Amino acid sequence: MIIVMRKGASKEELAEVKKRIKELGYKSHVIHGEIRNVIGAVGDERGKSILQSLESMPGVENVVPILKPYKLASREVKPEPTTVTIVPGLEIGGNRLIVMAGPCSVESEQQILETARAIKSAGATVLRGGAFKPRTSPYSFQGMEEDGLKLLAMAREQTGLPIVTEVVNPRDVELVARYADIMQVGARNVQNFALLKMLGQLDKPVLLKRGMATTIQEFLMSAEYILSEGNRRVILCERGIRTFETATRNTLDISAIPVLREQTHLPIVIDPSHATGHASLVPSMCFASVAAGCDGLIVEVHPHPETAASDGPQSLRPAEFQTMMNKLAEFAKVAGKEL
Amino acid sequence: MIIVMRKGASKEELAEVKKRIKELGYKSHVIHGEIRNVIGAVGDERGKSILQSLESMPGVENVVPILKPYKLASREVKPEPTTVTIVPGLEIGGNRLIVMAGPCSVESEQQILETARAIKSAGATVLRGGAFKPRTSPYSFQGMEEDGLKLLAMAREQTGLPIVTEVVNPRDVELVARYADIMQVGARNVQNFALLKMLGQLDKPVLLKRGMATTIQEFLMSAEYILSEGNRRVILCERGIRTFETATRNTLDISAIPVLREQTHLPIVIDPSHATGHASLVPSMCFASVAAGCDGLIVEVHPHPETAASDGPQSLRPAEFQTMMNKLAEFAKVAGKEL
Amino acid sequence: MIIVMRKGASKEELAEVKKRIKELGYKSHVIHGEIRNVIGAVGDERGKSILQSLESMPGVENVVPILKPYKLASREVKPEPTTVTIVPGLEIGGNRLIVMAGPCSVESEQQILETARAIKSAGATVLRGGAFKPRTSPYSFQGMEEDGLKLLAMAREQTGLPIVTEVVNPRDVELVARYADIMQVGARNVQNFALLKMLGQLDKPVLLKRGMATTIQEFLMSAEYILSEGNRRVILCERGIRTFETATRNTLDISAIPVLREQTHLPIVIDPSHATGHASLVPSMCFASVAAGCDGLIVEVHPHPETAASDGPQSLRPAEFQTMMNKLAEFAKVAGKEL
Amino acid sequence: MIIVMRKGASKEELAEVKKRIKELGYKSHVIHGEIRNVIGAVGDERGKSILQSLESMPGVENVVPILKPYKLASREVKPEPTTVTIVPGLEIGGNRLIVMAGPCSVESEQQILETARAIKSAGATVLRGGAFKPRTSPYSFQGMEEDGLKLLAMAREQTGLPIVTEVVNPRDVELVARYADIMQVGARNVQNFALLKMLGQLDKPVLLKRGMATTIQEFLMSAEYILSEGNRRVILCERGIRTFETATRNTLDISAIPVLREQTHLPIVIDPSHATGHASLVPSMCFASVAAGCDGLIVEVHPHPETAASDGPQSLRPAEFQTMMNKLAEFAKVAGKEL
Repeated sequence: MIIVMRKGASKEELAEVKKRIKELGYKSHVIHGEIRNVIGAVGDERGKSILQSLESMPGVENVVPILKPYKLASREVKPEPTTVTIVPGLEIGGNRLIVMAGPCSVESEQQILETARAIKSAGATVLRGGAFKPRTSPYSFQGMEEDGLKLLAMAREQTGLPIVTEVVNPRDVELVARYADIMQVGARNVQNFALLKMLGQLDKPVLLKRGMATTIQEFLMSAEYILSEGNRRVILCERGIRTFETATRNTLDISAIPVLREQTHLPIVIDPSHATGHASLVPSMCFASVAAGCDGLIVEVHPHPETAASDGPQSLRPAEFQTMMNKLAEFAKVAGKEL
Repeated sequence: MIIVMRKGASKEELAEVKKRIKELGYKSHVIHGEIRNVIGAVGDERGKSILQSLESMPGVENVVPILKPYKLASREVKPEPTTVTIVPGLEIGGNRLIVMAGPCSVESEQQILETARAIKSAGATVLRGGAFKPRTSPYSFQGMEEDGLKLLAMAREQTGLPIVTEVVNPRDVELVARYADIMQVGARNVQNFALLKMLGQLDKPVLLKRGMATTIQEFLMSAEYILSEGNRRVILCERGIRTFETATRNTLDISAIPVLREQTHLPIVIDPSHATGHASLVPSMCFASVAAGCDGLIVEVHPHPETAASDGPQSLRPAEFQTMMNKLAEFAKVAGKEL
Repeated sequence: MIIVMRKGASKEELAEVKKRIKELGYKSHVIHGEIRNVIGAVGDERGKSILQSLESMPGVENVVPILKPYKLASREVKPEPTTVTIVPGLEIGGNRLIVMAGPCSVESEQQILETARAIKSAGATVLRGGAFKPRTSPYSFQGMEEDGLKLLAMAREQTGLPIVTEVVNPRDVELVARYADIMQVGARNVQNFALLKMLGQLDKPVLLKRGMATTIQEFLMSAEYILSEGNRRVILCERGIRTFETATRNTLDISAIPVLREQTHLPIVIDPSHATGHASLVPSMCFASVAAGCDGLIVEVHPHPETAASDGPQSLRPAEFQTMMNKLAEFAKVAGKEL
Repeated sequence: MIIVMRKGASKEELAEVKKRIKELGYKSHVIHGEIRNVIGAVGDERGKSILQSLESMPGVENVVPILKPYKLASREVKPEPTTVTIVPGLEIGGNRLIVMAGPCSVESEQQILETARAIKSAGATVLRGGAFKPRTSPYSFQGMEEDGLKLLAMAREQTGLPIVTEVVNPRDVELVARYADIMQVGARNVQNFALLKMLGQLDKPVLLKRGMATTIQEFLMSAEYILSEGNRRVILCERGIRTFETATRNTLDISAIPVLREQTHLPIVIDPSHATGHASLVPSMCFASVAAGCDGLIVEVHPHPETAASDGPQSLRPAEFQTMMNKLAEFAKVAGKEL
């Protein structure tokens, strides 16, 4: 941590700050500059945001952190990439590109079974589908809840595809975990710390979506919540951030892939459906994501988007998904992944 | 809802869209334009986001909503302003400007009692203090939990000030409600719909903070979650939105005050502490908020910011708070409010 | 400047960086941390962005600037506030609140004269009006150009109000300067450095608008372009920044007022019309700005907004402006300013 | 254009709006809704932003445009893709992927010649280099100006590579055009309409960069400025937009590629160097951009980034560029392009 003193701060003020740094368990190291002094507080500052309060001391201009605040998520602590076992024989984070696909919401037996068979035949390896739906409006369809989970389980039985589905209430963690192979945390819950802590105590992979205004550093801090409770099977998912641009639902931050790759060992999945909001934009964003080096994709597919209970405009039809997957295989190969 | 057809869309495509509109229970009304046709779907579209799925039909370019999606929060449904009774004899939304103040976190008996007395003597009418703290880092202080609530209750007993405190987990709603006079929903939980629904079933005021990437329309939809469950005592709180600017912690969207005033009847509170992140910026933002017509303020005050467990840099010292309040009274008077 | 070394950087890499720092004319000062080393480069770094290139050296993680990059605009160099003389007897930056008002575009003799008289009678002290209009569309009205300037001069003659008008092309600086009392730089030209340099060589006040994605630091660097050419009469104008919120045209960053006040000695004006985009939101934003401590306002007023060639929806009618000014005088008084 | 009336607007207000619509040359078409009425104004609204002023009429809630405001840039007007001839025999917009590379600034004869040879040998087809540099700070290196242009011309002579370089002042258009093969408009000048109009009168390709807060619609309106003056050789360049994320210099909006592809016929180039700000992130963003279907790339390459006068941290070394190009060729092939 670097403490920048104000121009003209007094000796006494400097001494007080040094004293306080020592009390907090750090060594201080003053650099006398031409215009102002700065103090280096030497020690492991991670998790000690209390140092930030030094900004309230007389003579202090601001406090600049040097170390990243996460540990377990960091490549400095674990340099080699993590592969997460989804179910025995299926891993993410290695050479295989994992494609998760399915409808936004589970709506009916026929819908989920038809979709599951279609995506499997196109080469997807995980089925997605929402049973608990966080919706902006209280008047919108809120999901089939446990009935939806049962339909997902039925689709798994018939196709062999593991399932990923969202949990939104800490109360439902146990229920959802009885059905899901991967527990999904949605963008709106990326800082629902009560939920993250409970998921950290599970023995199941967690797909953690970045929030729409979450910095990469905050995103890794949310992963840290899960990791620090003991669950090391965290999969990160970029799904678009909120910007001023309205041509797309969100702005897919594809450079998050190499940034995360440098900072963390965790596997990285991209959701081009929520990022763009328009089915016609999804295939090219799948290709781009794989070329940029992601480990997996999560894509919305619906047999009849024009009647979908949610997110119709961004859902691919099965035939469109198949066409996309064919091309994707070629890009994956150049990127050193197999589909 | 307006459905914009593509240039060159066929008659059959138009007919299909009209048929689907009818199936969904609306009347369609076509305007034949020079370059493209548009269809007006007449009917109450609020809460029927399913119309959005028409975008997936052949020949449709996009779908433009006309009505606002909220009802109970809307001025169209309830034109007169709502006053929320905090405790008997203390209302927000009327002529009185309500100032809530206190530390970010409850840290100790001495800290909370000292602060409560100081803010009361300066003219504040509600005590704030966090017992459950949603923190970005799992290694940061997470709050005193029920012990913190007990200290808040003790401070209420000694000063007579009602208390506002945050609840973060639906599981804790009942516990927090046993102590709090106002239940606070933090910015990170503005779309924690499970939490909102539970608060909607309480008989207690809720202070709902806007999220840092929440549009005003989404904010009112979150209020609608609470209102539609039966609890009409919702207080809105703007606390800064996330932008590219880093000189302040967030950007206080002060124009949200008149925008909300036009669209909703609910009372509006401003949090200049989280918005700016720097104590020196807080007083002028208090003055600006009152001049813009807010109904209340929520301000962080700490007797010793340099040792605060959280948010030290943005906390006013009691003497600074007192000075601010003196000036605030003058602005409030011009704004037609009494402190 | 602080150079943060990577964890595990070698001694040789550290030595190379120290050598390069010395070559660039700074002294280096190493702090050996527990996890990584940091180097303080001591010397006046302002304007020496070349230090940033050290990030390309092996072993360097990143480079953190400590000093602000502007000098002449800074309060550290000039602590006392600057008052800018607009015309003899009229100053901005002192005790008087300066209100500039008028139409977005000059459209006709009648329009500008009628507006000038109305705003004068309501208490405004400067007339605004655009003759060169930067418009998003090449098919929109582009302004009356020199004819518009002549009409502004006529309005000045009849009312005694000095005029502020925009210049968009360096080629036109001389022409506009023949008519204008204050040269306005629009938001789109805040980093049109060729234009800024020419204005820096004039002997006339410049009203510099912040761009819609300009940080406060970049804004002050743009002011520095004008100041460093010799023209010290720079007036800063905040006019809303671009965010994700669409309820307003831009988001008025009212906290920029106290932030700028801390960092610079230059006077600060607020433009609530472009910030909000809706006339109904303008009065409360005027009140808020004055309460927050601004030195002036620039407000769009049009006698017939429904026929305005540009920006009709955000223009006040003369009667609305008058009503606003009456209330504004009360807020100004509390803020220690006279209208 | 759709005019949405307020709930409860009177018959007279409706009649007035219809009258005004007629005066402006449109036909009006009323849809009587359950809660409010809307009016369709039928006619070609493009370029007629004056309709927006209807928002100021009594009874009008807001005005919603239906048509896109650009014409010449639009796929509706010209469905087939445009190929722009850079120099005889070299086209962008067809099957060939065009890679432009070189230093941010031209610094010396040796630097530019060494770079030009290196990028040519790696397969680049256009040399980039800045002679007029728009820099945030007046104290930073501002470019070698005409001397830099001469060095670029020398490099062209020796390598046969055409050159792209930026023009920042309308005054210099003629000068820069004497040397450049492609005239570059930087992000800060995307709405410098005086500059755009002059470039519209040239017979030379223009590389137009998107601004950091420019929507895609505004970006195409800026292209429209050039096109409407007669120059049809416009190349669009996405270079990152400004968001809240600070891990990258800007956020590369890679979904702009398919969005632009749907809306315009103009060729699309990506600048991953300015978008990311870090050399290590550039190669994966090149791969992603090509996979997403761009027509070209513009990449910063410097022989010694650690001593670069500008943008060192984001410049690839020649060997890194060569490695990137080798991999890029494979991705380009899958994308149906040849390098």
